[in-house]
Amino acid sequence: MMTTHIRTTQTAEHIGQRVKLKGWLHARRRMGGVTFLILRDGWGTIQAVCASGEAIEALERAGAGVESVVEVEGTPAAQSRAPGGVELIEPALTVISPVREAAPVTINKPTIQAGQAAILDHAPLTLRHPARRAIFRMSAEAMAGFRATLGAQGFTEIQSPKIVASATESGANVFGIDYFGTRAYLAQSPQFYKQIMVGVFERVFEVGPVFRAEPHATPRHINEYVSLDIEMGFIENHFSVMAVLRGVLAGMLGRLEETCGAELALSGAIVPQVPERIPHVHFQEAKALLFEATGEDTREEPDLSPGEERWLGQWAQRQWGSDFLFVTGYPMVKRPFYTHPEAGDSRWSNSFDLLFRGMELVTGGQRLHLFESYVEALKRAGMPQAPFEHYLEAFRFGMPPHGGFAIGLERFLMQLTGESNLRATTLFPRDLHRLSP
Amino acid sequence: MMTTHIRTTQTAEHIGQRVKLKGWLHARRRMGGVTFLILRDGWGTIQAVCASGEAIEALERAGAGVESVVEVEGTPAAQSRAPGGVELIEPALTVISPVREAAPVTINKPTIQAGQAAILDHAPLTLRHPARRAIFRMSAEAMAGFRATLGAQGFTEIQSPKIVASATESGANVFGIDYFGTRAYLAQSPQFYKQIMVGVFERVFEVGPVFRAEPHATPRHINEYVSLDIEMGFIENHFSVMAVLRGVLAGMLGRLEETCGAELALSGAIVPQVPERIPHVHFQEAKALLFEATGEDTREEPDLSPGEERWLGQWAQRQWGSDFLFVTGYPMVKRPFYTHPEAGDSRWSNSFDLLFRGMELVTGGQRLHLFESYVEALKRAGMPQAPFEHYLEAFRFGMPPHGGFAIGLERFLMQLTGESNLRATTLFPRDLHRLSP
Repeated sequence: MMTTHIRTTQTAEHIGQRVKLKGWLHARRRMGGVTFLILRDGWGTIQAVCASGEAIEALERAGAGVESVVEVEGTPAAQSRAPGGVELIEPALTVISPVREAAPVTINKPTIQAGQAAILDHAPLTLRHPARRAIFRMSAEAMAGFRATLGAQGFTEIQSPKIVASATESGANVFGIDYFGTRAYLAQSPQFYKQIMVGVFERVFEVGPVFRAEPHATPRHINEYVSLDIEMGFIENHFSVMAVLRGVLAGMLGRLEETCGAELALSGAIVPQVPERIPHVHFQEAKALLFEATGEDTREEPDLSPGEERWLGQWAQRQWGSDFLFVTGYPMVKRPFYTHPEAGDSRWSNSFDLLFRGMELVTGGQRLHLFESYVEALKRAGMPQAPFEHYLEAFRFGMPPHGGFAIGLERFLMQLTGESNLRATTLFPRDLHRLSP
Repeated sequence: MMTTHIRTTQTAEHIGQRVKLKGWLHARRRMGGVTFLILRDGWGTIQAVCASGEAIEALERAGAGVESVVEVEGTPAAQSRAPGGVELIEPALTVISPVREAAPVTINKPTIQAGQAAILDHAPLTLRHPARRAIFRMSAEAMAGFRATLGAQGFTEIQSPKIVASATESGANVFGIDYFGTRAYLAQSPQFYKQIMVGVFERVFEVGPVFRAEPHATPRHINEYVSLDIEMGFIENHFSVMAVLRGVLAGMLGRLEETCGAELALSGAIVPQVPERIPHVHFQEAKALLFEATGEDTREEPDLSPGEERWLGQWAQRQWGSDFLFVTGYPMVKRPFYTHPEAGDSRWSNSFDLLFRGMELVTGGQRLHLFESYVEALKRAGMPQAPFEHYLEAFRFGMPPHGGFAIGLERFLMQLTGESNLRATTLFPRDLHRLSP
């Protein structure tokens, strides 16, 4: 009879039965004449107890150290002192891929004792560390929660092109490509395409890479990241979009709680409550609050500094007990040309940022929808109409009031886990100084 | 009391109740003193019957023609002669965004009467045509089916970087980028990253763009497309991967049948049966069959021509009644350096292509997994080891036997719907001559 191949996380369901597991030799240690092996597979780890030297003979013969790929037959037994309350006894090992080299970074201690550069340089190895791996399992589940929430509300997924003929919002901060002798660019965002697709499906979303050629090195910026985008038609104003965003966040976090108990614990994440109604403050009011609290007058500045965002995050926590805060109405001068102005006062916009624990996580808003408004807006911005003709065709032929938002996936994970650098929650980060692995 | 805003596809559930719909004025025609308006929203269309001139006064006043965005209040009534068996009576119209311009391409006839260039140039408009839109709704559902099938089998989704330091498989056919003064490239595939991630999660998938700088213009190639990739560890050989692929195809097609009845009909798609076991033929045997049938000897050619793939597709149909055929064992010389050779005869590989109705839809296979094998394979291919050091680190520190495949999303839709050009099933195609919209 063939022994069943099970996952480490299924061990407790097979107490007393002979089973087979496959994975990596995560750790090996000797205590009181007994050798403990920790086997890691794609889902978790399990301890195997080798009471005799015979069990580890296969390792010795192959000179197989940690990270060797092995097959272990053994019998699950309840053991309160073992991690997870279960261990494998009477194990028989087979070596599949022996590793004889010492790892440049140790990945079988609770935390990786290495600097950020070494951790990223050796990503193929360090991503195997249970705590680092946990972050990217949560990343997958966050995407799944995003899609499921939107799918249930009639949103259709799109995949827009990443090679584009002209910069999305302005000529700045785009990567250029040689496209068969023509100059082309990497998309800064799916903005134009998701708007065009509102004309087709009313409600669309996209999960995909965006590229920003911003030449600054900060802990909260990288040059390629995953953007969770939506765009929806027939809205009242930006508050309609904010209501959908509230549900999306609850859906993503709910999914994590449902599927990622172990990963949340391993990564030290604290799952926030999403208030039934996320508090919101107008940009003008936010500036007034900041002035009052700090005495520093930045009311004429058209944006919030990272420090101001942090202060507002703390304020929302004090005032409303909320990890989230919407800042609405950002000055039109700081928003892209397609932004819809505030009814009655066109200095301000129907746009918002969502701060999560004092950091901008989402940007969104209502867009212009009438063709004439676009013609005017481009003129006002001093931008030519010609490069936008294809985009403008959507508005020329009928578009409803619409809006949307974009969540930065890596930032979501960074704020959730309390990491201080975006590179820790990016699978293979790209920045000014890093292009590999 | 507020009138409920419903979708066109929900109209039949509200017979006799006053409801509100929002969408585009798809068509307008007059018959025997009555004006019929067709309203299109993100999901379907519905006919509104205007018995008096009063109902369309709002349109007349605004000069609003087809594609105008409108709100219609009306009462659903059963009507056997109406499309879908239901129509709106006593409609009251409000114009949201009037369109006064004539469309450059007519989108309210059963088929678009325009050439391919015009259809693609005016994509923001032509994608609204119900038959074109249907293709991209199916695209979304195909992706959902892909993810759901794999999610249920323990696969974790990843998002690998698209900007890479060196070409994936060879220096040819990559787009170059100026990356802050350094030369970088657009990823031809997530191959290296998905393999690295097998070391982390055992089973991974990715849905994302890939970029091929192939300078040829054929109906079956484009330069940016959506690749549905998987990679999995602890396989026996390529047949383990083929078995997962069989389930994935059944899952994708099942999802389409479940959710896209209307879209399948609109696009003229014929859903194939996925045999319990998809027939397979070894490359060598395929060549022998072709020689026997055609008298043309291409047995020394290391690949199949498009004509040969078509013939094999017809042969599979005759021989097995199957729309699918695996060709296995492609010559090692034609496969990338990481390909695992056939046990016992290293002229051939543990690789496969899947033909769908006589066209290559999927490429996959088993990869090398031992570090030494990679060192040898690179040496044999005359390739330096240095540019691959990060990738090789995964193998240096233990990798199981593994393999995977990549499905071209647009090709899947092309073969499913019987379109003759990949551009018809690509949302915003990129080719030698097209970069926009």
